[in-house]
Amino acid sequence: PGKLKNKVTKVAKNTIKLGKDDPRRVIHSLKVAMALTLVSLLYYWRALYDGLGVAGMWAVLTVVVVFEFTVGATLSKGLNRSFATLLAGALGIGANHLAGLFGEQGEPIILGVLVFLLAAASTFSRFFPRIKARYDYGVLIFILTFSMVTVSGYRVEGLLEMADQRLVTVLIGGGTCIIIAIFLCPVWAGEDLHNLIASNTDKLANYLEGIGGGEYFQLPKDGKSTKVIKNDGYKSVLNSKTTEDSWANFARWEPGHGRFKFCHPWKQYLKIGALVRQCAYQIDTLNGHINSDVHVPQEFLQIVQASCITMSTESGKALKALGTAIKTMKDPKSACQHLETSKNAVEDLHIALKAASLENADVLAIIPAATVASILVEIVKCVEKISTSVHE
Amino acid sequence: PGKLKNKVTKVAKNTIKLGKDDPRRVIHSLKVAMALTLVSLLYYWRALYDGLGVAGMWAVLTVVVVFEFTVGATLSKGLNRSFATLLAGALGIGANHLAGLFGEQGEPIILGVLVFLLAAASTFSRFFPRIKARYDYGVLIFILTFSMVTVSGYRVEGLLEMADQRLVTVLIGGGTCIIIAIFLCPVWAGEDLHNLIASNTDKLANYLEGIGGGEYFQLPKDGKSTKVIKNDGYKSVLNSKTTEDSWANFARWEPGHGRFKFCHPWKQYLKIGALVRQCAYQIDTLNGHINSDVHVPQEFLQIVQASCITMSTESGKALKALGTAIKTMKDPKSACQHLETSKNAVEDLHIALKAASLENADVLAIIPAATVASILVEIVKCVEKISTSVHE
Repeated sequence: PGKLKNKVTKVAKNTIKLGKDDPRRVIHSLKVAMALTLVSLLYYWRALYDGLGVAGMWAVLTVVVVFEFTVGATLSKGLNRSFATLLAGALGIGANHLAGLFGEQGEPIILGVLVFLLAAASTFSRFFPRIKARYDYGVLIFILTFSMVTVSGYRVEGLLEMADQRLVTVLIGGGTCIIIAIFLCPVWAGEDLHNLIASNTDKLANYLEGIGGGEYFQLPKDGKSTKVIKNDGYKSVLNSKTTEDSWANFARWEPGHGRFKFCHPWKQYLKIGALVRQCAYQIDTLNGHINSDVHVPQEFLQIVQASCITMSTESGKALKALGTAIKTMKDPKSACQHLETSKNAVEDLHIALKAASLENADVLAIIPAATVASILVEIVKCVEKISTSVHE
Repeated sequence: PGKLKNKVTKVAKNTIKLGKDDPRRVIHSLKVAMALTLVSLLYYWRALYDGLGVAGMWAVLTVVVVFEFTVGATLSKGLNRSFATLLAGALGIGANHLAGLFGEQGEPIILGVLVFLLAAASTFSRFFPRIKARYDYGVLIFILTFSMVTVSGYRVEGLLEMADQRLVTVLIGGGTCIIIAIFLCPVWAGEDLHNLIASNTDKLANYLEGIGGGEYFQLPKDGKSTKVIKNDGYKSVLNSKTTEDSWANFARWEPGHGRFKFCHPWKQYLKIGALVRQCAYQIDTLNGHINSDVHVPQEFLQIVQASCITMSTESGKALKALGTAIKTMKDPKSACQHLETSKNAVEDLHIALKAASLENADVLAIIPAATVASILVEIVKCVEKISTSVHE
């Protein structure tokens, strides 16, 4: 019993945390429940008074399947479902008519062949990456509706009535979802994408500022002070590609809202996202070097210290400014300044290194620090590319 | 018309390429079509002779929705669907019974409240990462079935009959899918995961061997010979996390097959995959340095050349041996040897650098090469970790 109690409290804590992390989740759950209850009660009353039980079911089904977390996903699924149902219904009625011409015996054979061919072709089409990304659900519903209409064995008049009922109920269900999704505390995929890119940029900025102000580049005054910097925030950036891709896909379906117009350049976000991720790969390598236990010899540190600190701090600040610029959609003027400063630091580093003589230096010990410096230079370049992208 | 023709030929070419790249796609399409035709014809005949048109529909629906590319995904969806339907059906009948106690007026209110509460709770539960990964589809079907059964407005006897019909048809549909998926040219998610990890390891190995034998570390004998190595095969490794995660999830549902037992340690694959990806990040950084235009001064190159070439070639060979070991599930003995050689090369590099004096050297020009060497050292460490993981 003690164990069970522990488990229950743990689950409860998790639940509360999940809700607190993003209160929109709670709201989303309530929205789905509301849409479902509305449609269900409609169905309940129709089932009781009109005897249309079966058709009303489709409205419930549509709500459950179509209602997604973001507006874009809901719209994408709803529109896919509507158009696929329409198209497949029309084709199915045609196929039924065609098969009817072949008489009692030929009909099932023709129907079977048609279903087989269409199902094979549609299933294969789902392997095309572009169809997979945008119309996967539509193709699914297309196969579903086509085979159901084709083989339902009714004559054409019965079919038309059925198709009419189905279409109306699907529209009721889909319409309820879309209206509730858009007008009741909407969650926009585009806005999420926007914020994700901005916060990813911010995470990298924090890391860079962290090592700039951190102890790696400090001269060891009070004995050993090589405290390892723990800042793993950037790690989530490494694997953000899938999320970005799917959000950008959904964002394309969304109508204009707030600061975003209908044809907002979502592709540009993917481009910036890819650059940010590339920068994150470099930071990951850098992180490995900084957290190794090698001591940097003091004479070398003196040469590179100033420029390295400037490079990391200023490129961090530039990134932060870029993140803010993305977030507020303003021209990142201060980012340019920081970028200039960090590029000057690269120059300074070059000059300092050219002037330095390392006669008595321990080459082996220098290399890790040199690597850090060199990667920082690459990061500065990368930040510059990001900056160009943001400006576009 | 010329444009249209161009487009058609382009689509046709793409289609053929898609099929050739992975012939299992064509087979999968035919399998789905077969399952669907079988179930459809069954439905057709039942609709004609027994008048059970509506219930038979569920078999068609189940086939279309459940049949996925891999056995694991199909099993996961099929089992999720069956259990969720059972559970929700039972609960729904209970809820209907309960609501019936409140009389004509109270019934819809109680039903509405019940649907609202359950829908909200279930929708929220889909945000838990573990439920999302494994039971997302089951929860969806649970909400769907529960609300449909609850509000269908029949009395309990009618419900039981309906539930019976539905269950039989869902089982027919699901059973057909699972049998065809497993016994007709099965596509195992586990095997795909296995091959993916092995081929990712191989890609990194090819890259490392490529730069080892490439021109970056060659002394420029015949003037300028800084041809840039183009080997971007490793890039796909950077973003493979999502695929690996989902395949590992599906693999868990699969029964034992071929060389894989039922409780094959799929998690270990994810661990190796993560390490391989980390190594890929480092290679990405390395790639940036190697493809820059900086000339390495000859005197420094002479110091590091031998050990750098050995490090990259041997760690490449070690990775290749590990990839083969993963593929064939044998103990990677030769990998250990190559790893030893590359670790010795790291030692050699350290000794060479300690002995070297760089009095007249251009420190600035050395740094990129030093960085490359240093990253190679990190890669060797990473390869060692991968090796340990593979051994487990």
